[in-house]
Amino acid sequence: MPAKNDGPEEGGNPTKSEQTRALILETAMRLFQERGYDKTTMRAIATEAGVSVGNAYYYFAGKEHLIQGFYDRIAAEHRVAVREVLDRETELEARLAGVLRVWLDIATPYHEFAVQFFKNAADPDSPLSPFSPESEHAREEAISLHREVLAGATKTKVPEDLRDILPELMWLSQMGLVLYWIFDRTPERERSYRLAERGTKLTARGVYLARFRVLRPLVREVHELFTDFLPGMTKVLPTPGSKSEGDAVS
Amino acid sequence: MPAKNDGPEEGGNPTKSEQTRALILETAMRLFQERGYDKTTMRAIATEAGVSVGNAYYYFAGKEHLIQGFYDRIAAEHRVAVREVLDRETELEARLAGVLRVWLDIATPYHEFAVQFFKNAADPDSPLSPFSPESEHAREEAISLHREVLAGATKTKVPEDLRDILPELMWLSQMGLVLYWIFDRTPERERSYRLAERGTKLTARGVYLARFRVLRPLVREVHELFTDFLPGMTKVLPTPGSKSEGDAVS
Repeated sequence: MPAKNDGPEEGGNPTKSEQTRALILETAMRLFQERGYDKTTMRAIATEAGVSVGNAYYYFAGKEHLIQGFYDRIAAEHRVAVREVLDRETELEARLAGVLRVWLDIATPYHEFAVQFFKNAADPDSPLSPFSPESEHAREEAISLHREVLAGATKTKVPEDLRDILPELMWLSQMGLVLYWIFDRTPERERSYRLAERGTKLTARGVYLARFRVLRPLVREVHELFTDFLPGMTKVLPTPGSKSEGDAVS
Repeated sequence: MPAKNDGPEEGGNPTKSEQTRALILETAMRLFQERGYDKTTMRAIATEAGVSVGNAYYYFAGKEHLIQGFYDRIAAEHRVAVREVLDRETELEARLAGVLRVWLDIATPYHEFAVQFFKNAADPDSPLSPFSPESEHAREEAISLHREVLAGATKTKVPEDLRDILPELMWLSQMGLVLYWIFDRTPERERSYRLAERGTKLTARGVYLARFRVLRPLVREVHELFTDFLPGMTKVLPTPGSKSEGDAVS
């Protein structure tokens, strides 16, 4: 189970320690937005949050860990906000559309930040990339949501051998939407919402078609291509006995 | 026919004017690599090339036009270098593999530049994006190459209604490879070459499967999704009577 970075466990009141953690994370997010990620130091974050630098480092080993904390927080907020849709809808298309729409809602306040932050996260080898080993916890959360989307689509039959693969491909298409959203300058990100809707129709049709025997190898190979070439993705489905890719980027 | 930005027409000796144009373009490329795109001014380019600022602006209306010139040059070099492969190979997979491999060869000297330049080109609304209206000429060149790849694959039957669509999707997958290549830090970009090979197999299989009636609507819809949501793409296949998308990004 990958380490979690967003602090408090669910349930119960936050402890003093959890509150400090949350305060540091919020301060960091604010400073990243105001001054830019590159220009914000751990020292500045600590000062602004009113904690010692040592204390800040105790909670977050560095700026990158703060970003992981941010990813985890978004993933957790998303999971909560989408519950209502997943409890109500039983059609694949409605479930997936809800998951994407709610993600766009949740992410709205962070759009400015995402734009300026993008150049740090676009590199798949960066720990800040959604494909990095460091982002594993947030990624796992997001993929497990897609697993639930698929499992709860009562009319959609999914062959056994695609049950783990399709949610990862669905998550990848969500990453495509996120990329589009980052660059979306329409008011209220209106085009992103429309892309989510159109993309959902396509994905649902793709999932429907994926069951056909003639197509299954293609689906499996597309998935293999991603797992072989995106660092970190290989860890999503751990291969027993193998530690990591032999030809990892050096 | 979109405007061409790389200077000399094919055939014949370059005129004085063409030579000046090429000199400015080469100087700009060198300065972009040495100082970064953002920090290089038209004035610096003119000085370094030994021409007046007015003269530099006469040939290129701005830095962005120099980048278009660079795109056009890469596209032209690619078209020449790939000729031998296209004249020899008749199998879709071999033809496409050759096109991608030769592109990676051609692009090798520009890798450093591409890395630092990426943040300017990643935004689909930037004129420097491969999807922008400004990049139309280079994009048309590249897509027409894929059209030739497909047309010359003698054993590959392509239904009429997919003949214009598939080359554009093949070009899109090439753009995926380019994105991967930009971030590839392996020696000699070895992983990008392997991705090109693996991706080619998948694309060839996809093209083969696209002929099935059950899949054709999916292929068409994927293509529509791209043309509707990527600025500039809509112009690749002009729709008679319609000027542009009604809901263009404002």
